[in-house]
Amino acid sequence: MKRKEEIIRRAVEVFEQKGVSGSSFEDIAEAVGIKREGLYYYFRDRAAILVEITLEPSRNLLKGLQDILETNQSSEAKLRLALENHLDRFDPNYLEMAVALREHHIYETNEEMEILRQVWKQYSDLWIKLIREGQASGSFQSSQNPKLVAYGVLGMCNWLSRWYDPGKDIPVTEVIDTYFSMILNGISR
Amino acid sequence: MKRKEEIIRRAVEVFEQKGVSGSSFEDIAEAVGIKREGLYYYFRDRAAILVEITLEPSRNLLKGLQDILETNQSSEAKLRLALENHLDRFDPNYLEMAVALREHHIYETNEEMEILRQVWKQYSDLWIKLIREGQASGSFQSSQNPKLVAYGVLGMCNWLSRWYDPGKDIPVTEVIDTYFSMILNGISR
Repeated sequence: MKRKEEIIRRAVEVFEQKGVSGSSFEDIAEAVGIKREGLYYYFRDRAAILVEITLEPSRNLLKGLQDILETNQSSEAKLRLALENHLDRFDPNYLEMAVALREHHIYETNEEMEILRQVWKQYSDLWIKLIREGQASGSFQSSQNPKLVAYGVLGMCNWLSRWYDPGKDIPVTEVIDTYFSMILNGISR
Repeated sequence: MKRKEEIIRRAVEVFEQKGVSGSSFEDIAEAVGIKREGLYYYFRDRAAILVEITLEPSRNLLKGLQDILETNQSSEAKLRLALENHLDRFDPNYLEMAVALREHHIYETNEEMEILRQVWKQYSDLWIKLIREGQASGSFQSSQNPKLVAYGVLGMCNWLSRWYDPGKDIPVTEVIDTYFSMILNGISR
């Protein structure tokens, strides 16, 4: 499977450099240094490569959140851990996740992506559950729509894929601290 | 210019249905009911159509925020108005803005989009300014990085393009109320 891993690594680089819509199957073959026909041995098309890139980190993200929700901690503590679970992945898996999030739309007409979309659906449903539990236990305000809150938090976090560069920007730990305090207590003094 | 407007309207429909990366110049010509050559009379390529679609609403968004920042109100009031300015546009201009935001990445390798990117840069810089002024006046907590806060807010709002359907979902006014209260005071009870 070493060859397949190398293809994935090169594909991520190509997608990052040229964007998914600007990268052809041929570009990836060329970057790997094999012929188009050789690449077909491993992947049917560009979309299959994208699924391979994004499915594992997405499943890890989901698994991480599931584990957090199964613990016996306060909702505040779970929120903090859930933010860490989400945002820490921008560090080691930055490239993959950035590609996955930025190029999200390409999946919309592609049936093969259904499994990936289901993972994401489960993931955002778990976020709604986290908020709902916090409201039920009296930790969070119950007047706010849990779906709106959850999607607001996911929006804050996922938007990092549009502007955040872990090498140059603010450390991830500061992002986590700030977003945790913002979400919990707001920005008002 | 009526013909040009019709092309834009059809192009938005095509982009919405098939996604930008799945829509060709020919698809748009076909939807308008003219030949590819006829479409060239109005637009050089697909990217030129996208600029035409997104530039005006983006400039309106920027102008709206500039006007708000020039008033003499409290930072809380400006935050509220800035959210309204941003989110109200999901209603009448939903299609255009959804296309613009979702397909953002396509601009990244296209030089023609530079002008649009500058409008967006000015817009997010103004958001940072709004937060910074609120911190300076003592309305907002000064311990939070203004850029992180501003991008967090923009992330919450822009993420709507991924999930929000103004026809079926929660009313925009509720989104504005909830996000305003979340940003200002958080979700903690």
